[in-house]
Order: sequence, then structure tokens, then C-alpha cells
Amino acid sequence: MHTDDLVSLRQDLHRRPEPAWCEFYTTARLAEELESRLDLDALHVGPDAIAGDHRMAVPDEAELARWHDRARDAGVDEGILESLDGGYTGLVAVLERGEGPTVGLRVDIDGLPVEESADAAHEPAADGFRSEYEGAMHACGHDAHATIGVGVLERIAESGEFSGTLKVFFQPAEEVVGGGKSMAKSDHIADVDHLLALHIGLDHPTGEVVAGIDGFLAVRHLEAEFTGQSSHAGGHPEQGRNAVQAMATAVQNLYGIPRHNDGATRVNAGVVEGGTAANVIPEEARILAEVRGETTELMEYMHSKARHVVRSAAEMHECTVDFSIGAEAPSATSDQELVDIVADVASQTEGVERVLERDELGGSEDATFLMEAVQENGGTACYVGIGTDHPGGHHTPTFDVDEASIAHGIDVLSGTIERIGRRRV
Amino acid sequence: MHTDDLVSLRQDLHRRPEPAWCEFYTTARLAEELESRLDLDALHVGPDAIAGDHRMAVPDEAELARWHDRARDAGVDEGILESLDGGYTGLVAVLERGEGPTVGLRVDIDGLPVEESADAAHEPAADGFRSEYEGAMHACGHDAHATIGVGVLERIAESGEFSGTLKVFFQPAEEVVGGGKSMAKSDHIADVDHLLALHIGLDHPTGEVVAGIDGFLAVRHLEAEFTGQSSHAGGHPEQGRNAVQAMATAVQNLYGIPRHNDGATRVNAGVVEGGTAANVIPEEARILAEVRGETTELMEYMHSKARHVVRSAAEMHECTVDFSIGAEAPSATSDQELVDIVADVASQTEGVERVLERDELGGSEDATFLMEAVQENGGTACYVGIGTDHPGGHHTPTFDVDEASIAHGIDVLSGTIERIGRRRV
Amino acid sequence: MHTDDLVSLRQDLHRRPEPAWCEFYTTARLAEELESRLDLDALHVGPDAIAGDHRMAVPDEAELARWHDRARDAGVDEGILESLDGGYTGLVAVLERGEGPTVGLRVDIDGLPVEESADAAHEPAADGFRSEYEGAMHACGHDAHATIGVGVLERIAESGEFSGTLKVFFQPAEEVVGGGKSMAKSDHIADVDHLLALHIGLDHPTGEVVAGIDGFLAVRHLEAEFTGQSSHAGGHPEQGRNAVQAMATAVQNLYGIPRHNDGATRVNAGVVEGGTAANVIPEEARILAEVRGETTELMEYMHSKARHVVRSAAEMHECTVDFSIGAEAPSATSDQELVDIVADVASQTEGVERVLERDELGGSEDATFLMEAVQENGGTACYVGIGTDHPGGHHTPTFDVDEASIAHGIDVLSGTIERIGRRRV
Amino acid sequence: MHTDDLVSLRQDLHRRPEPAWCEFYTTARLAEELESRLDLDALHVGPDAIAGDHRMAVPDEAELARWHDRARDAGVDEGILESLDGGYTGLVAVLERGEGPTVGLRVDIDGLPVEESADAAHEPAADGFRSEYEGAMHACGHDAHATIGVGVLERIAESGEFSGTLKVFFQPAEEVVGGGKSMAKSDHIADVDHLLALHIGLDHPTGEVVAGIDGFLAVRHLEAEFTGQSSHAGGHPEQGRNAVQAMATAVQNLYGIPRHNDGATRVNAGVVEGGTAANVIPEEARILAEVRGETTELMEYMHSKARHVVRSAAEMHECTVDFSIGAEAPSATSDQELVDIVADVASQTEGVERVLERDELGGSEDATFLMEAVQENGGTACYVGIGTDHPGGHHTPTFDVDEASIAHGIDVLSGTIERIGRRRV
Repeated sequence: MHTDDLVSLRQDLHRRPEPAWCEFYTTARLAEELESRLDLDALHVGPDAIAGDHRMAVPDEAELARWHDRARDAGVDEGILESLDGGYTGLVAVLERGEGPTVGLRVDIDGLPVEESADAAHEPAADGFRSEYEGAMHACGHDAHATIGVGVLERIAESGEFSGTLKVFFQPAEEVVGGGKSMAKSDHIADVDHLLALHIGLDHPTGEVVAGIDGFLAVRHLEAEFTGQSSHAGGHPEQGRNAVQAMATAVQNLYGIPRHNDGATRVNAGVVEGGTAANVIPEEARILAEVRGETTELMEYMHSKARHVVRSAAEMHECTVDFSIGAEAPSATSDQELVDIVADVASQTEGVERVLERDELGGSEDATFLMEAVQENGGTACYVGIGTDHPGGHHTPTFDVDEASIAHGIDVLSGTIERIGRRRV
Repeated sequence: MHTDDLVSLRQDLHRRPEPAWCEFYTTARLAEELESRLDLDALHVGPDAIAGDHRMAVPDEAELARWHDRARDAGVDEGILESLDGGYTGLVAVLERGEGPTVGLRVDIDGLPVEESADAAHEPAADGFRSEYEGAMHACGHDAHATIGVGVLERIAESGEFSGTLKVFFQPAEEVVGGGKSMAKSDHIADVDHLLALHIGLDHPTGEVVAGIDGFLAVRHLEAEFTGQSSHAGGHPEQGRNAVQAMATAVQNLYGIPRHNDGATRVNAGVVEGGTAANVIPEEARILAEVRGETTELMEYMHSKARHVVRSAAEMHECTVDFSIGAEAPSATSDQELVDIVADVASQTEGVERVLERDELGGSEDATFLMEAVQENGGTACYVGIGTDHPGGHHTPTFDVDEASIAHGIDVLSGTIERIGRRRV
Repeated sequence: MHTDDLVSLRQDLHRRPEPAWCEFYTTARLAEELESRLDLDALHVGPDAIAGDHRMAVPDEAELARWHDRARDAGVDEGILESLDGGYTGLVAVLERGEGPTVGLRVDIDGLPVEESADAAHEPAADGFRSEYEGAMHACGHDAHATIGVGVLERIAESGEFSGTLKVFFQPAEEVVGGGKSMAKSDHIADVDHLLALHIGLDHPTGEVVAGIDGFLAVRHLEAEFTGQSSHAGGHPEQGRNAVQAMATAVQNLYGIPRHNDGATRVNAGVVEGGTAANVIPEEARILAEVRGETTELMEYMHSKARHVVRSAAEMHECTVDFSIGAEAPSATSDQELVDIVADVASQTEGVERVLERDELGGSEDATFLMEAVQENGGTACYVGIGTDHPGGHHTPTFDVDEASIAHGIDVLSGTIERIGRRRV
Repeated sequence: MHTDDLVSLRQDLHRRPEPAWCEFYTTARLAEELESRLDLDALHVGPDAIAGDHRMAVPDEAELARWHDRARDAGVDEGILESLDGGYTGLVAVLERGEGPTVGLRVDIDGLPVEESADAAHEPAADGFRSEYEGAMHACGHDAHATIGVGVLERIAESGEFSGTLKVFFQPAEEVVGGGKSMAKSDHIADVDHLLALHIGLDHPTGEVVAGIDGFLAVRHLEAEFTGQSSHAGGHPEQGRNAVQAMATAVQNLYGIPRHNDGATRVNAGVVEGGTAANVIPEEARILAEVRGETTELMEYMHSKARHVVRSAAEMHECTVDFSIGAEAPSATSDQELVDIVADVASQTEGVERVLERDELGGSEDATFLMEAVQENGGTACYVGIGTDHPGGHHTPTFDVDEASIAHGIDVLSGTIERIGRRRV
């Protein structure tokens, strides 16, 4: 596959960003691409790629059906599509190249609920590959990640420099930290000796590589549903128990949870809603929040405080509240052994002008589930940063990647995999 | 039409409650009912019944289409249904009975976004006429109002005691105070000399009648849309401008607008929503609020304060905010001349055990637009309360009416109309 | 006593406004004035004037001592001053004029914690009788009330038109609704047949009299003390339990208690404080609030909601909270019999151009305790409004009275008392 | 001076904790102690010790006078006390010991507005040296710091091992970060080559020493005064512009300022107050807040956001707001050269069982002004942590020090000073 084909693949994926567990088109398109171009030893698709019971934050059936329909309309293999029904997305592609270590590469494939910029200064808009789905966007570069996964498979298949087994995990639902666990619990990870993961951008410009990224914030999603009592807002405001007042009180105080001296914490009331009509005292309201911490303890501190705030806010307005935990992810650290290899390979890679040994992510990632699984089995793991000039920040309407960095990613990761495969020889 | 038929009509309407401007089934069903049973002199349906340009708070096309489809599925006259397309609902039925005054009777026909109780103690649930539409309910008795409108037409048509013209206004969209103005601006109101309107319940038990209701709160609906800046909630919380924080701050302070010494005021943040995902600092949020006042000045006080609070909350979180005015209604007073007639007729009506001359509504109503129009033309108007035992409060899931009170309504209003029609002779 | 003397007395009292239960100078000055000018049958001062156990909202010893010292510095009779020690203020002056009814007149004498305007446009500032006590002011006209009380005693003593007994109650601590009960529980009220009370101003201009004021809001004062846990705000913010966050959450939600359909309600967080230093997470905070209602039930509704809000806010921030009830007052109604007399007398009084039969106070007053006591004994009571042009509103820094209205008050009340005393002859 | 004397001095200081700029007794007592026991080359007291113009956060005259009176009552040298009048506290003690470097040691001497525990488990309470001043406490160990300063002077004076000049800076007003700048701007710092500072405790147990502490949070104190409009809370709530509502809204949103990805931030509304009486809509309110940041940029971010929040909250409630900046302090880093010496000396000190090279303070300190001054002059600086078992946290009512650690502090610092003085020989 030539660079042009990869760029074209990336732009096609960019045009059809799908949210967590709804990557129907993406999964099917990647399966077709891999099967048509490569002689894989195995391709596990959908329910065969993941441990379905461990999926987290799966949307409701109506949402799944809506995206399933869209994927069908976009035109993909009906058989594959059928197999993904119910939100079982993702793929594991396997190349066996003789004796040697099993190396895993994890890339994520989902998009975000962000409305993509239509501004002429935004390249996807100018060049005609802006998202075709209103309110959805590849605003974090997973289109590039998936493309790099395909590119690495192709390179390893062609080069003959690698001895061992390569598994590329095309992971769904990273944005809701809902998919990593289901891949970490699948059989495919069990024999992986070395795991690589990557992210593009992260405020590093094109030509910069971070050999080992750490500082993953542990994260947990939390949903709170308030139930009060409706009443006529004009006739009997005193008879209501106002779920929106409870929600607003909770939001104000969630953001006011004390900072912690032990390290960074985060809280966000990312989605809220409540009420039914202007003239009805709201009976129901909802907050979908997330908490994070530099360590799991700090995340648990935030989680415990958040629940307490929400519960008291409900009590204040005489509402009940039901909680449900959404998704979560642990923290993780890149192993020095792999960091050294990546740094060395990157320093010899064309187009890479600067290599940082370590940097902090300052966010969360459920690649940590896969890293943790491999490390607990005695293996090693490393999360690599591939710089790219991105005009807007991650998760914003003007995010975009410099396509030159796709080649950097393929080069650095393939080189690292070959080095790992060669070392044991 | 016998009482049984009217009860059956009421239960059929109850089963299919439709929100403001979506009264497709209701309008068509009433049209069929009136045409099949009565020899009307005119029946103006949909766009012919209202001044379409003066509709307020019309929902979006998707919502209109959803209810239009449902009405078709429920099985009504396709021709009528077609004519209502786009949310032009409502009817004006006209009976001409010779010389004499033109008397108007206004009844409203829309339902509410309330999920009806499925409890066995709730009669519509027990007797099988609970709402078939999830999240929608006749929770304010407009099913009974519409039925009374039909019953009065039939009674006047049959009795021969009335000389003059009777117009019954089946008004859509009262719950959003969005329909009254469109009927008040139609030609049909221009020649009305005396207008009657009614409401069932209002905490008055079966057997009680209020001859003249006043104390209508002036009301205005206000929508505020906040726009901030999204950012990654884990990676760069400091780069966000959080529209949900702005919204929550606004909600807290809206309910805290000072009470006013000149009289009753109200405020409600009836519908709120914001944000797109747990891990994105929310870029957008929305409040649909309403303000009320015992006088128009008090309503304006609340409106002005509410805008100021919302604007400052947006500013605090570095968001912009756009306002749009939804619907509104003025205040009104029942004329003593008509109150006296109603009180006298009611005191002689079978089943009516207690007649109150006056009471306060303590809520809002856009019947006031029609009352104001008639009064400005030199006519008189009166808003009548027909008591009914209602287990739950208005706008709550267990609201229901005592069907015996439907007959009381028909008797009192028909009797009043006949008295008006006889007086001039 | 001539008008000039009364004006001079009023200005002297104005210069030395004293808060509730600290009316040391005022009480002593009034005692001296009354004794030097009138041949009273009895003058009960301080502990002899009130039922000391029923005082409410008495300030702490340090505050009492501070004002006691000030009174001494201002130069009043040491013996009287001594007897008031501990905050036992107020007087009851008695004139016996033979057979006839016992008529009570209640005037209040305390000032407010308001800093008086020093603006040249503010007459007391321009004419040199602005408050000498920083942060204290006669901002509600009680200086004029006390003066009217003296003037009425003098008029009745001199005129010879009254047969019966006149008792003037110079009541302390009205502004905190803390003194009325202690006078209502004293023996002096027991034999009162007819009670008059008055207020100057209330947005009625000079020359206007309201014969009977009603619409007293029932009121209760409520103090909440939050206790959390201090910690170093830089070093361990997470170890604090922030009493100021609890307090702020409570304040926001107190003002958001739903309005009530049954009538007017009020809430005010009138005094708040918390914390000790910028770098310490606040361990303690306090709210002194009041709630009011058009009826006692509505006041109780507000009180119950307020406690619930405060308790939940404390719980939210893991603080404890202690409540104490401050002072309170019931509602009351003026008897028509007395209203008629006042209206008639007023209509014949020089300088009175307009007489309103009734008006609403729209505030609270603990004269209601005395009115209630007399009415429960079978007597009658009436609360009279004496209009006065006041540039600033009540309780604001630019409040002032038109001294011409002092004569109107004396004339109307003396005339009414004489009419009552004559009627029985 | 023997250990017993030092313990006795520490307990005497503990008994009389004085807040910032009110260290009258403390300054005078230290001056007496130093002069009676040591043959100093110079002792600069009060206005001679500091650059008075650079004092920050000086309390008002009444507060200064109150503490000045207390110091007189406690019995200290009247002459010294006189010289401190107006809040010019602190001392600089100088020992000249021939050729060699000038070494500075900075200790702070002020107490905190914390009410000390009276619990029997709290040693100062059990042993009879609990604070004699209600609401004031040495809750951060500055009594031990001052004692160590005296002990180091005595040790260096007696040992004969040091060649050079030793200056001990007994700094006032650290707790409000108000005194460091005034010492850094005095002439006494100009010739200091090496500066040492210390803090006891910081969650390090007795026997632990941190050779170099960093991670000082930059800090700024900010005061906001809201002015609205008072009105009668019962009569005209709508005429008020409520400064307490503005303040509460500000507090809620101050704590909600977004966390920052670049590092730690802090915010605290440490002191708030507002309003005058339960029945007056509050016209004035005040917040004394502080913001901190791991860097000056982060502190400025917090400061800028805090002002914006406060300004918008004032605007929301139609209040004006005036800001004043209180005190502030920069960040700082310990020089490796001195850290190495301290670490080496500590490792050889009796009773010291564990030496950490570096740790983070996680708080703020205005020793950073002195460190910055010396470092800008080409000198070096080091902030040393002396572990002590402390039952309660810093700034809490049960804080106390293990007196054994006072000897550790004297040994480590004297040893370091001797090493610096010896090195150059």
C-alpha cells in the first residue's frame, strides 16, 4: 500500500466518524481493507475480537441501530455488518512470522460527539473530507491511528525483518474508556510479550516523538439520575421537588471539590439535562460526569466526593438519585526497556527531528488496561507519542492532523517491532 | 349524543394526548365527531381556524412529523390530516340560530409532556384508557374540556332555547401559551359579543362551580442558549469555557430572584440541557425558562431580572448567550355581568352543590388573549371553573377527572349561553 | 411642651440611635423628659416595664456593655442607667383620668445597624443631627414614634377631654421583633381595653393617614452555625471540611425556596460570616436569616424548607450545623370599630388631606403580640399609619421623616383616645 | 542556654501566640532573651529590622492596639514595646566571628487565628502551656522556629567553629505572607552570601530531615468588597441589590475555577462576611481569598479567573465590587550546593534517622522573598525541613511539635553554618 492509499484511507475514515461501540462502518471498512491487501494469518472481527461481557458504556439500542443503519447506507459488506450487530465492534489482525516474541500494537478507532468545523481554514472542510455525520467528528486523530495500524501491518508483512508474531488491536470505544477492558479480557492479549500503543499529537509538533508517555490519569464515568416531583410551575410551585435545582446545585459543587495535595485531579459534568416543559417544575434530571486522578487513589477520592455532593444536592431538593458507574481505566507506566528502543529507533527515523524520552499525558486512556494485562503477565509495555501539527486542540471542532506524521508513526513503530523481533534472534 | 358517547369520546382523546401544535389526531377526531353528529353551519379546521402567523412556541419539523405520523397510524381522515400539516391545528365550530348575540366558548385541546401513572389506583390505567404515547398525557383535563365543547354544541343545537350565533373555539397549544394569540388574531373572534372559557378542577371538588375566575398570571417563555468553548476535560480543562457551569450558575440564581412586594411572581427553569460527552468540557447549554407575574409589570420585572442573571452567568464563564422569547399571555378579569349569570345558572344546576362567585387561578392561561380581544371590542368575557375530584394535582402523573363533572360543565355553560341568547329577545 | 421641644427631642433621639435591647440612652432620656414635664401617675422603667424572661434576640454581654458605656458617656441619669443593666430597656407611662376605659398606645424606640448618609442632601446631615454612632441609625422613624408617644401623653394630660386611663408603651427591640412579646407578657397589658399602635411613613406621603393597617407578615429569625474542619489551604485543601462552601451553597438555595401559591413569602440571609484567614480552609461559618409568610402557615413552610436547605448544605460539605431560633412575631388584624374612629378623627385633623381606610404593611411588626394579647382579652386593637415624606426607603441610609407629620400623629392619636374616653361617658 | 531553657522559651512563646504584625510580646521577649544571654554584635529590633514600607497585610489600628495592650499586660520591656508601635515587629540578630562568609538564617515568629484545642490529649493543654489568647494559636510551629533561631545563635557563639558573620532574621507576618518582603527589602539582607530557612513538621516525623525543600506555591491574597443596596427584607425585597447573594455566587464559582494542566493550583475564600441584620437585604459583603499556583503563571491564571468570577457575580446582583491585593510571595528553589551540605551534616546528626534530599512544600512561604534576594545577588539559598511528630495537621487546633526536634533543628543548622564558615578558610 502506498502512502497515497493510506492518506485516502484516513480521509475516508475521517468522513465517517462513529462514536463508541458504533464503529460499524469503520470496523467493516478496515476488515475489507486488510483482507483485500494483506495475507493475514488471522483476522478476528467484532464479537471475536473482544470479550463482549466486558464492554462498558455501550449506548442504547436506538443509538446502536441508528449508526448500524448509517453504516449500511454508506455501503459496506453486509455479512460483516451483520456480525457487529448490538455494538460488538473492533478487530484483531494477526501476522505470524516464525519464531520469536509476540508483539502487540494497539490503535483506537472511534470518533467523538463534536460538530466538525466547516470553516474554510479547516483542511478537512477545504479538501472535502469533513465529517458527513452531523455532530460527530474524528477530533482526536483515531482515523490516523487506525491508518497507522494498517500501515504497520503492511510494512511488517513486506519487510521480512521481523521474526515472531504481530497482533494489531483495532480497539473500539476509547473515547468513553469503554473498550480497552474488553480487549484486555479477550484471549488475544494473553500471549503478548510486548505491547506498543500510540497517540498522535498531544501538543507535540510534526517531527517530534515521545518515546514513553506516562501520567495517565485514572478515570471513572459516573451517571446520576435525579427524581423529584413535578408540579404546575404557575399554580403550585411549592408542590414540586425540583430535580433541575438539585442538578444545578450538584454541578456548582462538583466543580468545587477541593483540589488534592497528592496530585492532579479532574472533574467534569460533561452532559446534563432535565425537565420537560417551561411550565412544569422539573421531575427528572441527569448528570453524566467523569472524575480523574493522577493515581487511582486520587480518582477514588474524587469519585467519593462527587457521589457525596450529588447525594446531598438531591436530598436538599427532596429528590432521590440513582447512580450508575459508566466506564473506567487505571493508570500505567511505560517500561524503560521499550522506551529505550523506541527512542533509538525514532532518532534514526527520517523526518523525526526531536525525540523526548518521557512526557506526561495529562489525560486518560484505556490502553492502560492492555498495558496492565501484559505487564501483569511479565511482559513489557510502552505508549508512544507521535507529534503532529494540529491547528485546534484535541476534542475541538478544528482539530486536524498533519498527514506527514502518519508515515512517522508507521516508521517508528515498525522499526521498533522489527528491533524487538530481531533482538531475540 | 348521550352521556356514554361523551365519556367514550373523552377516553379516546385521553388515550392519545398530543402536545402543543401536534394535536393532529385530536383535531381530526373532533372534526369527524362534529360533522357526523351535528348539522353545523360552519366548521373551520386547522389553518382556517387560526391566524397561523401568530402561532407561538411551535416545535421543530421533526417533532411535528413524528406526531403527524402517529396520528396517521392511529387512523383518522387523511384529508383533514393533510390540511393540518406543519402544525396548523385547532377548530372553530359555528351554529347559527337566528337573531341574537354571538357567543363564543373557548376550550383547549392539547396534552402535556408528562408520563402517565401506570398504577392500578390510577383510573385511566385501571380502566384501560391510559395514554398510549410514552411521555405524553392529558394531565390537565383538556380531554374533558374538548368533550364539554362538543356537548355544549349538541345541547344548543337540540334545545331550541338559544337565539343567536354560537362559536366554539377548540384551541390548540394552551400548555405552552402558544395558541391563544393565534385564535384571538383570527377573524372568528371579531364578532363575538360574549366569550366564555372554562377550566375543570383547579382544586375544586365535583359539585363546586366558580362563576368567575381571575388572578391569571401574566407569563412569558424565555430560552437562553449558552455557547462556550469545548476542550478535553482531562488534558486541558483550563482551555474550556464551560457552558454547563454557566447554566448551573444561572439556574441557581434564577430561582433566587427577589420576591416582589407588589404581588405574586414565578420563575421556572423548566427544561435544561448541555454538553456532549463526559470527557469534553461542555461548549453548549440551554435553558428554557418561564417567568410570571400577578400583573404584566411584575412579569416584566421577573423577565428583566432573569435575562440579567443569565447574561451575567454566561459572562462569568466566558460564554456568549442568545435569548429567544417563546410564548406569552396577558392577564385578564371576568366581567361581573357574566359572572352573575353563570352563578345564577350554576345554582340551579343539578349536581352543583356549591357556587363560589370568584376565585384566583394562580396560574397562566392564554384564554386571556381571547378575553382581551372581546373586551377590547366592547364585549364581555368570563372564565368559569367547573369543580372535579382529581386525585393527583394538575400536571402530575396521577391527575384524572371525575367524569360526572363533564355533565356539570355542559349544563352550566349551555344554560348560560341560553340565558344570554334569551336576554336580548 | 411646644412643637419646638418635640422636634428637639426627636433630633436628640435621632443623634443617638441604639439597637435592640441597647436603648439605654433612649430609655433614660425619655424617663427624664417625662418626669420633668408631666405629672404621671406611674412610670415603669426597664425591668419594671417588661417581662424580662420573654425578651428575644438579646445581644451578647460585650455588645450590651459597649452601648451601656456609650449611654453613660452621653450623660444621662446614672441611677436609671444602672437599673437597665443587662439589656432591660423600655418604659410604660401611665396617666389616670378617672372613670373610663383603659387605652394603650404602643410606640417603639430602637434604631438599626445602618450607616447614616453623610450626604448634604440628607437633612439630618445638613442640619447637624446625623447619628453620632457609626453604623447605627434611626432609619425607620422610631425616633419620631417615641416623640409622638411623649406628645400624646402631654396632650391628654393637658386637654381634660379624656376620661379613663392611658398607658403609653415605649417598646424596645422592635427591629429584631424581640421586644413586643416581653411587653405583651407584662402585667401592664392585662387591663388594656383598646390598643393603638402606629407607624410613620410606609410610602405614604405627609398628609395621608391609614386608619387600619393589616397584612403583617408572620416572621421568624433563624441562626445556623456551621462547623467543619480547618486545614492549610495551600498544603492540604483536601483535608478541610469547608464551612464557607456550605454556607454559600445554603445561601444560594435559601433564596431559591419555591414561591408558594397560598400567598406571600420572604427569606433573607441578612448576616453571614465565616473563616479566619485567607490561608485556612474555613472551619466555621454562620448565617442569620429570617423567613416570613402572609400567614403563620406560610412562615412555617419557609422555616421548614430553610432548615432543610441549610442542613443539606452542611451535609454536602461534611459540616455539622446548629440552629437557634431568634425572635418571631405573629400576624394581626385591625378591628373595624377602632378603624372607623381613627378614620373619622383623621378626616377632621388639620394637615391631613387624605384618609385611607385600610392598607397592607407587607412587612412584620411585633406590635402584633400586644394586639393579639388585647384582642384575646376581648378588647380591640388598631394599627395606624401616619404618612410622612421620606426621601429614602425604610432601612436605608437616606431615610428621614418630615417633622410636620409628628404633629399629625399626635393629633390623630390623641383625638382617637379622647373619642374612646368620651364614648363611654 | 540549656535544652530546658529552650523548651521553656518555646512554651512561653506558645502561650502567647500573636498574629501577623502583632508580634509585640514575641519580639520584645526574644530581644530580652537574646540580650540577657548572648553578647551580640548587633540586635536590630522592630523598625530597624525591616523595611517598613514593604510590609503587606498589616491589620487595622484597633487590632494592632489590642495586641499592643495585651503585650503590655503580659509584662515586657516598655521601651522595646514602644518602639514596635504601629506594627513594626521582628528582629535581626548579628554575630560577627571574623573573616568569612555572611550566613543568614531566617525563622518566622507569628501565630495563627486558630482556637487551640483544650482537649486533655493535646499536650499544651495537658501541660499548661496552651494559648492564653482566645482564638489565637501557634498552630504551625513558629514558636519552635524562633526557639531554634535563638539556639543556633547560642551554639555558634559558643562553639568557635564558625568564621564569618551570622545573621538570624526573626521574621514577622509569615502566615499572611506579609513580612518576607519587608525583610528582603531591608539592608540586612544585602550582604548575605548564603541563606538558610527552615520549617518544622510538614508531615515528616521526628528524626527525618529534608535537605532541600522546593515546590513553593506562588501565592496572592485578594480582597473583594461588594456594595449593593439595602432594603427592607419584608417590605421591599425587590428594591435591594443583595451583596450576600453576590458573595455566595462568587464563592461557589471561585472553588469551581477549572484545574490547570500545567500544574497545581489553589483557591480559598478564607474569610467572608456580609450584611447587618436579619431583616435588611445586605448592602455590603466581603471575601478575603487567596490563590496559589505551582508557578507564578499558574497563580496569575487563578488570580485573573478569580477576579473575573467575582466581578461577574457582583454584576449579576447589580452590586459594585472593589478589589485590593493583599500580600503575595513568589516561588523559589533550593540550591544544590547547600542541599548537599545540609544532607551531609544531617546524616551525621544524632537523632536524625533519615535524610531526604528533596521534597515539595505544597504550600506557600514568603521566605522565598529572602531566598530570591540572596540568589539574585549571586548567593545561594536552601530551605530545610526538620521532621517532628505532629498529632494534628498544620493550621489545626491539635497541631503540636515534638520538642526533641528542636535540638535536631539546632544541630543540623548550626552544623551547616559551621561547615559553610569552615569551607572558605
